[in-house]
Amino acid sequence: MNQQGGRADGMWLSDVEIDDEFWTPRRERNRDVTIDYQYEQLEESGTLENFRRVAAGKSGGFQGMWFQDSDAYKWIEGASYVLAQRDDPVLAERVDEVVSLIAEAQGEDGYLNTYFSLVEPESRWTNLHMMHELYCAGHLIEAAVAHYRATGTETLLDVAIDFADLIDDVFGDEIQGVPGHEEIELALVKLYRVTGTRRYLDLAAYFIDLRGKDDRLAWEIDNPETLGGAEYGDGSIIPDARSVFTREDGTYDGRYAQAHKPLREQETVDGHSVRAMYLYAAATDLALETGEDELIEAIERLWTNMTTKRMYVTGGLGPEAAHEGFTTDYDLRNDAYAETCAAIGSIFWNQRLFELTGEAKYADLIERTLYNGFLAGISLDGTAFFYENPLESDGDHHRKGWFDCACCPPNAARLFASLGDYVYSRRESALYVNQYVGSTVTTTVDGTTIDLSQDSALPWSGEVTIDVDADGASVPLRLRIPAWAESPTVTVNGETVDVPTDGYLELERAWTDDRIELTFEQTVTQLKAHPAVKADAGRVALKRGPLVYCLEAVDNDRPLHQYEDPSPVSTEHRPELLEGVTVIEGAASVPDRDGWDDDLYRPVSETARERIDVTAVPYYAWDNRAPGAMRVWIRS
Amino acid sequence: MNQQGGRADGMWLSDVEIDDEFWTPRRERNRDVTIDYQYEQLEESGTLENFRRVAAGKSGGFQGMWFQDSDAYKWIEGASYVLAQRDDPVLAERVDEVVSLIAEAQGEDGYLNTYFSLVEPESRWTNLHMMHELYCAGHLIEAAVAHYRATGTETLLDVAIDFADLIDDVFGDEIQGVPGHEEIELALVKLYRVTGTRRYLDLAAYFIDLRGKDDRLAWEIDNPETLGGAEYGDGSIIPDARSVFTREDGTYDGRYAQAHKPLREQETVDGHSVRAMYLYAAATDLALETGEDELIEAIERLWTNMTTKRMYVTGGLGPEAAHEGFTTDYDLRNDAYAETCAAIGSIFWNQRLFELTGEAKYADLIERTLYNGFLAGISLDGTAFFYENPLESDGDHHRKGWFDCACCPPNAARLFASLGDYVYSRRESALYVNQYVGSTVTTTVDGTTIDLSQDSALPWSGEVTIDVDADGASVPLRLRIPAWAESPTVTVNGETVDVPTDGYLELERAWTDDRIELTFEQTVTQLKAHPAVKADAGRVALKRGPLVYCLEAVDNDRPLHQYEDPSPVSTEHRPELLEGVTVIEGAASVPDRDGWDDDLYRPVSETARERIDVTAVPYYAWDNRAPGAMRVWIRS
Repeated sequence: MNQQGGRADGMWLSDVEIDDEFWTPRRERNRDVTIDYQYEQLEESGTLENFRRVAAGKSGGFQGMWFQDSDAYKWIEGASYVLAQRDDPVLAERVDEVVSLIAEAQGEDGYLNTYFSLVEPESRWTNLHMMHELYCAGHLIEAAVAHYRATGTETLLDVAIDFADLIDDVFGDEIQGVPGHEEIELALVKLYRVTGTRRYLDLAAYFIDLRGKDDRLAWEIDNPETLGGAEYGDGSIIPDARSVFTREDGTYDGRYAQAHKPLREQETVDGHSVRAMYLYAAATDLALETGEDELIEAIERLWTNMTTKRMYVTGGLGPEAAHEGFTTDYDLRNDAYAETCAAIGSIFWNQRLFELTGEAKYADLIERTLYNGFLAGISLDGTAFFYENPLESDGDHHRKGWFDCACCPPNAARLFASLGDYVYSRRESALYVNQYVGSTVTTTVDGTTIDLSQDSALPWSGEVTIDVDADGASVPLRLRIPAWAESPTVTVNGETVDVPTDGYLELERAWTDDRIELTFEQTVTQLKAHPAVKADAGRVALKRGPLVYCLEAVDNDRPLHQYEDPSPVSTEHRPELLEGVTVIEGAASVPDRDGWDDDLYRPVSETARERIDVTAVPYYAWDNRAPGAMRVWIRS
Repeated sequence: MNQQGGRADGMWLSDVEIDDEFWTPRRERNRDVTIDYQYEQLEESGTLENFRRVAAGKSGGFQGMWFQDSDAYKWIEGASYVLAQRDDPVLAERVDEVVSLIAEAQGEDGYLNTYFSLVEPESRWTNLHMMHELYCAGHLIEAAVAHYRATGTETLLDVAIDFADLIDDVFGDEIQGVPGHEEIELALVKLYRVTGTRRYLDLAAYFIDLRGKDDRLAWEIDNPETLGGAEYGDGSIIPDARSVFTREDGTYDGRYAQAHKPLREQETVDGHSVRAMYLYAAATDLALETGEDELIEAIERLWTNMTTKRMYVTGGLGPEAAHEGFTTDYDLRNDAYAETCAAIGSIFWNQRLFELTGEAKYADLIERTLYNGFLAGISLDGTAFFYENPLESDGDHHRKGWFDCACCPPNAARLFASLGDYVYSRRESALYVNQYVGSTVTTTVDGTTIDLSQDSALPWSGEVTIDVDADGASVPLRLRIPAWAESPTVTVNGETVDVPTDGYLELERAWTDDRIELTFEQTVTQLKAHPAVKADAGRVALKRGPLVYCLEAVDNDRPLHQYEDPSPVSTEHRPELLEGVTVIEGAASVPDRDGWDDDLYRPVSETARERIDVTAVPYYAWDNRAPGAMRVWIRS
């Protein structure tokens, strides 16, 4: 076993200690509120009881959604990341209990899925499209790897290995097929990395390669009555289900599950956006292991399609609610679906893309997504969550405490808890600083120990200080220059160095108590969307540093659609507002309401406009005060 | 019987002969194509067969929608209007056949509804909300009145009278209740006027007055299993049916059928827009007969709400498809439902409002609706129809030849055929010219015979000439000055007279071969919508004379959302285009596409715009060439 677990030059959470004015309070709330609350929900929702019933050999009495086991697994994964970074005996004991329960519920042959064990034991693996056995197995494996790496104990890892072995015995042999919801693919790569057992990588490759080549999913959609979980298998919990899965002519459209053609032939990011992100992340993992050119080309082609034609300015993904996913190029309607989990999945994928290529653009996108598309998903107090993240609301969209389909909160919890993974990275014998988050790290690069201590004023100001010490040894340091930084300046021990406009600034020297000071100017920028984006025609979005801003009704007198031609005048940091935010203040043009009387339509020549104050707040912070309208894209 | 039929000073179609460059070809196509095609459809759809089966005493075998009888009635009505204006032996024979068939199908007691007679004879009058027996009865009565007035024969009128007598015996006595779909109310007033029998007016008043006061409709919605037509009665053919009828708390919301409160207490136009128009039209008829102040106040309040807060610039009504109707003030989203029948219903209502008040604003709105919201509903060749009339389309909205619910085509047919009703009117011993449509009329005003011959270049040019002769007798003539006419000028025998800016110009003299020449300047006007209309914020609509214009993809190089700040440069009449239209040509700003490369978002400071040609065509003419996008409201 390799408790380090990652690729040969990976880093692990326990190396990084985060102490950041912006992120630390959020991570603490995640730990103290969210993970605690989620544990209670595991009991409340019957998730743990399902495992208890299976462990006790009972049948029937299943509670919740058919893929509810994954809630327990995601909770363990998030909790394990917390335990990797701090002692928490209460949490550790809870994790142990849940791990034991899961182990007890595992079948003799390694099978583990409480829905099928309790309700339809004879129907295992019959409904790959909808019933999510492999999806749950993937989350079990991710939890097991995290738990093992955090604690060194192998209880859950053994469970995962036994189940993975069973899956490997069954799939590719007696059953040919892929899961309707990707997840196990990237989990199997993790399991391969931590165990060194090649069959898991091969099984991941099997699932990735077969997708889009066989017609099993299509057959299932057309024959729901023959499947396990038939009450779900017809898609009846999904509104307008057949339209999600089928084309207008009634034939199966694999797009929903990225199964419309082999991955290597895909040109556009399609279908359910979380599934897409998990698949592409796994494929990037596979490419990291194999170096296969065709796969790398496909992944980069998909990334380019996503980032140049199918991504919100917040990093959010997928406009359409009906199938929770992508539609067509430039369809970026502002009543976006943009599921929080898709933003999280994008961060997973982009991290792997960085690892594959070493390119800063992936870390840039992680930053954009972290501060906007992801962070908006969680209320400031950490107790409520958006499933959907529109860029415009009439005032009727609000975070909720939990969901019938509770995927977003535990996914957010595990991302908060593993934030340290995204700050630094080792690659090509260099140490990368990818995110500017206050933290310390002690690690080794090619056998040389190096200490970094980072202090960051982001996102409110672009002042970053990094103290570096390697006892005089030389280690290449690569500092990301954010694409948004307009006139970046960097000094080392007070001396200015040349800085590229983006990408990485490489510094190499015999590090001995050296101080690097980075200054990323943060001006308010008005962004336009590509001319083909109908939804944003004649509109601008305000951006400052990594943050996208929005107008909220609570700060502005007029209905938001009336604001036009905003001119940012100043920014002001307000420590008392929304736990401390920098607001953008300015003026904008609104219609003069005089003269309208009872008219509904008037000649433009008889109408007038006036300029009034306008205030914008960071998008991530919206819907934390009085309910009301919000819009990111303001008329220009 | 009063074959003149209307109010004491009404006019009848046969007095008016239309000969107009714009309207005559449309009316001819309506007669030669639409009414003919509709007749074929009556056979094709099983509508006539339903009557035959009832006449033959058969049961079962009903074909089509449960309110399909009304198709036959509406066809007879439209055909009768044609017969009132010209000899057409073939059409007359067809009408006679259908009338005979209907008469044969009537029950001994006067009952007439083929659905209930064939399918559920025991369930008459059990499902007032959904099953439309009274709605069909209303169309029977309208057809009967039209047929009697056109032909002088009483066959169908007797059928209608017998059925109306039965309804009057049943309702208000053994049954208290109102129809879910208004229509019979206005029909009963017509029947009263032609027969002079007071009970029909009283029955109309009963239905109008009871609406919103009893809870029968609510009870039906909650007890669909006890009703006739249960397979329809649960609203299952209406998508998302309960949400149409119920509030969020699950209780019945009478708004859909204007039954949420008594009409005299209603403040806003609500619910299904066709139903609303028919109810308000009937209520205005009732007010004409009774002069009741409270009713008149309610009607005028509703009209003000509609025209100042809930009406498209085309005169279209009702944004929401789910309940085919009105929503909230200023909700004028451009993917409008705006059913063609609602525009027709608005014309019916406004004509009655004019008769009630003599105010020009109602004739103004009839003109706006005729040339835009109504006329767009029919293809140039008269064979295809819009049910919905959006003000913006991505290119996937097209007219269809017929509909499962075929209400719009026959409604359009009867309006085209009765256009003469809207051109002239007698009121307060004066002769009104309400619409500028080339025509001749010979009529009497207070016993004085007067001949008018009108020549009109509308809508392409505002030149109108009216020759008047009354053998030297004096008759007040009231000429509508359209609200859109900017500098109207009028001469009588070459001498300029003073003209009000809108309303009516009254001319009175001893008419002897006099010539009135009216000139209504037609400039292109850019209209703004009220600041509260979110959908049109930052947009303008182009209008010229009575016509609203739109951009169509086929005339313009760029996607329509890219056009901004249009500046009309000139107008040009193109006789070869769209059967002859005046187009608006100009320039507009569009994004410079250079420099975008693979960017999805760029600072506005790095983007540029350029001006290119833009062409707008009359809204009514859209979707008659290559399919493509269309938009009325252009970014400003």
